[in-house]
Amino acid sequence: MAKEKLYLEDLHVGQRFTSGRCEMDERRIKEFAAEFDPQPFHLDEAAAAQSVFKGLAASGWHTAAVTMRLLVESELALSEGIVGVGGEISWPRPTRAGDVLRVECEVLEITPSRSKPRQGMAKIRNTTLNQNDEVVQVFTASVLVYRRNQS
Amino acid sequence: MAKEKLYLEDLHVGQRFTSGRCEMDERRIKEFAAEFDPQPFHLDEAAAAQSVFKGLAASGWHTAAVTMRLLVESELALSEGIVGVGGEISWPRPTRAGDVLRVECEVLEITPSRSKPRQGMAKIRNTTLNQNDEVVQVFTASVLVYRRNQS
Repeated sequence: MAKEKLYLEDLHVGQRFTSGRCEMDERRIKEFAAEFDPQPFHLDEAAAAQSVFKGLAASGWHTAAVTMRLLVESELALSEGIVGVGGEISWPRPTRAGDVLRVECEVLEITPSRSKPRQGMAKIRNTTLNQNDEVVQVFTASVLVYRRNQS
Repeated sequence: MAKEKLYLEDLHVGQRFTSGRCEMDERRIKEFAAEFDPQPFHLDEAAAAQSVFKGLAASGWHTAAVTMRLLVESELALSEGIVGVGGEISWPRPTRAGDVLRVECEVLEITPSRSKPRQGMAKIRNTTLNQNDEVVQVFTASVLVYRRNQS
């Protein structure tokens, strides 16, 4: 599906975007954890049941990575791609095997660059929800945005 | 290497921990991006050369995931594992293929829980550096910590 590319001029505070959905696979949760976050509560049901998560939980970085995939394929089709310089992330609730995640985005601020006339920053809150509409991650990101016309 | 498990009582503000090292492999950078962050500047040298990154760059989430692996294997051996509830993340500089990353951690705050006597939160700044001592990521995380003796 071809998407209209978005420039700074196309964004406004309060604007919302949504993503598709992605199901979290148990095997992939364990593989991701084995490579990047090898802690018992991400790898093994029995150990996870005894942990603060009270059951197998995806690594927060797996949730973050899947959120990014959903964003890249979402309506948020920024002209030069989604390039975040940073932001605040939180995981209010674990992601479980079988969870179906989606992302809702809202533009919170738009700040044109003072030194680079073609460039600006947008602060966008990306909320990742599961199939029960429970929030599993909030990432409020500062992303690069570009003007349509070079000045 | 068996590591002494760390409890809330073992931590103090200003305490530092270091990690081992991990080299960023070009093939793995592209595979990670293909799965989680399929944007041209993470997938293809020619497209990346034309982008804001001016060359192939790892997804910030790949840098974050590798940082987590380094933390899990670092001296920061918290008793119940490293469980972050969230934090602030920034990527001041791209991670490149061939970069050798390491993490330096510093305890910034320790806050015992008011409601849960065995529990507390530590704010820890995790700085990921490359082989030239350039900072590629800063993640200031709030992590769960536990007291040694139940009260």
